[in-house]
Amino acid sequence: MPASPGPALPGLEDVHAAARRIDGQVRETPVLRSEALDRLTGARLVFKAEALQVTGSFKFRGAYNTLAQVSGPAVVTFSSGNHAQGVAAAAARLGKQATIVMPADAPAAKLEGTRSWGADVRLYDRAGGESREAAAGAIAAETGAPLISPYDDARIIAGQGTVGLELAHTLGAWGETPDVVLVPCGGGGLAAGVALAIEAAFPRASIYAVEPEGFDDTTRSLAAARREGAIPGARSICDALLAPIPGELTFEINRRRLKGGLVVSDTNVERAVAAAFRHLKLVVEPGGAVGLAAAFGDHLDLRGRTVAVVLSGGNVDAQLFAHIIGRHGAGPALA
Amino acid sequence: MPASPGPALPGLEDVHAAARRIDGQVRETPVLRSEALDRLTGARLVFKAEALQVTGSFKFRGAYNTLAQVSGPAVVTFSSGNHAQGVAAAAARLGKQATIVMPADAPAAKLEGTRSWGADVRLYDRAGGESREAAAGAIAAETGAPLISPYDDARIIAGQGTVGLELAHTLGAWGETPDVVLVPCGGGGLAAGVALAIEAAFPRASIYAVEPEGFDDTTRSLAAARREGAIPGARSICDALLAPIPGELTFEINRRRLKGGLVVSDTNVERAVAAAFRHLKLVVEPGGAVGLAAAFGDHLDLRGRTVAVVLSGGNVDAQLFAHIIGRHGAGPALA
Repeated sequence: MPASPGPALPGLEDVHAAARRIDGQVRETPVLRSEALDRLTGARLVFKAEALQVTGSFKFRGAYNTLAQVSGPAVVTFSSGNHAQGVAAAAARLGKQATIVMPADAPAAKLEGTRSWGADVRLYDRAGGESREAAAGAIAAETGAPLISPYDDARIIAGQGTVGLELAHTLGAWGETPDVVLVPCGGGGLAAGVALAIEAAFPRASIYAVEPEGFDDTTRSLAAARREGAIPGARSICDALLAPIPGELTFEINRRRLKGGLVVSDTNVERAVAAAFRHLKLVVEPGGAVGLAAAFGDHLDLRGRTVAVVLSGGNVDAQLFAHIIGRHGAGPALA
Repeated sequence: MPASPGPALPGLEDVHAAARRIDGQVRETPVLRSEALDRLTGARLVFKAEALQVTGSFKFRGAYNTLAQVSGPAVVTFSSGNHAQGVAAAAARLGKQATIVMPADAPAAKLEGTRSWGADVRLYDRAGGESREAAAGAIAAETGAPLISPYDDARIIAGQGTVGLELAHTLGAWGETPDVVLVPCGGGGLAAGVALAIEAAFPRASIYAVEPEGFDDTTRSLAAARREGAIPGARSICDALLAPIPGELTFEINRRRLKGGLVVSDTNVERAVAAAFRHLKLVVEPGGAVGLAAAFGDHLDLRGRTVAVVLSGGNVDAQLFAHIIGRHGAGPALA
């Protein structure tokens, strides 16, 4: 007898189905270019501007695709903030009630954004060792509402994959073929979804998950060929990318389809946030800017290559953003 | 015998010709929406995001349309910074040399941006009473290169009008009809061009020029039915909108096609910059945000109306932007 199968992995057809399901709700975000950033890196950079998505991040895609397939009147989830806003907005549009467990130290912009969509926000103490999964699970058990994973769900992954579909469509229309694709990575849902779509359109593209120092769990897991956790006690300004370990589904996809992981420092992330301010006129949050930070680094030789960078979100508090651009806003000298 | 005709006014057909001429060079900028800003104003707001244009402002449109019709190897112009960058970039793409007279106190981002495109920048002292027109005119006379007006030129106006064509196209595709259109106004080139395009598509839309306090020359000129100058010695953070008097051509168009002018304070402009940061994830410079500032004000009853706002540029120094969002970034409470 064969072993019982694991949960089904999403495929390209699920990403296409997601695209149809979210059509008219999700914004097709623009792909931006900057000659100044091309000069600075020596690459041909194209930026998928998901900071301009509804709720300020790509998370609305997966959330809407998932909630549109949930029949009950309520959902429960946990999130550091972008998935929270995505679920809150999708629930509001679909007439559902969302209860969302969030860390008490989440950015104010994310807490307020989530509440503004009418979600019931329950705070937990990230430093105190409380498990957000356990807290959300208890609410789900008590209320009977389904628990929506931030990333380890085929519907979430398929929804995030529509970022890759749109990117492939735009690049195809421009006659561009990406050599490298740089995707921010927390639990790995965006990377997995984008990989499904990009691999189909551009099978020779090298796709990398990009992570902040200390939260390089996917990078190390890819190297070790098994799931490894983040560094206990690590800290980063990339509040959106602090997942403790790769998802099971996301890692199954990513280990087959990603070229590897790249790790960036908070200082280089700040420089990337400032560069996006200056040259793209976009507000990108730290976790959303790690791909550009990697393009600035010496991880890969990008000279002359076409490099697609996903700028995944823009939900950053004004004080932090002001601090970052005040320090780095003049940016590196133009070549 | 009839009186000798004045310089020819551009018409809708010139805007369409400009659109064909700049195709492939100018970016079709996205039109963005924000449910939070709709809640704050009670209106249905749509934002034409020209901060995402090549060079960070709409000025590249008119500059490219004009320089593509200039046969010689060089051009001369004067500008506080956005037209400078537009001309510099258009000249670089068309293989021409640009000499540009700029105020010494222009934002560093604009001076550096202009130089990064290879233009020869000549500084003049705005406070010292030097005439930038005279300085640029002397260079033109000496070199034989044509002097490109920042706004009072049919080719410039037609190029800027492509903002309106794209906006009308997007709104048409969405099935939206704007009741009100709010356009930042310095010399009036953008307002005139947008008016040509919007009036043709939406003849019942009320189009307003929006100006900062002290530089309300177009507002007063429209009320007086003759060209009046800005307040001598006035100051504003809207460095892009400090033109001393409406252009002759632009005023001829604007007096026939605009509903009027609206005047906003620097404080409300700062609030608008912060709101665009928070809710649109866009970097908008003060002069680019006056339309949103007007939507926040009590000039017009916008409740339930569809209001198109042109966000005309995003070239703002990091220190000023940090200061503004540090002060106003938390924004007004959501309704």
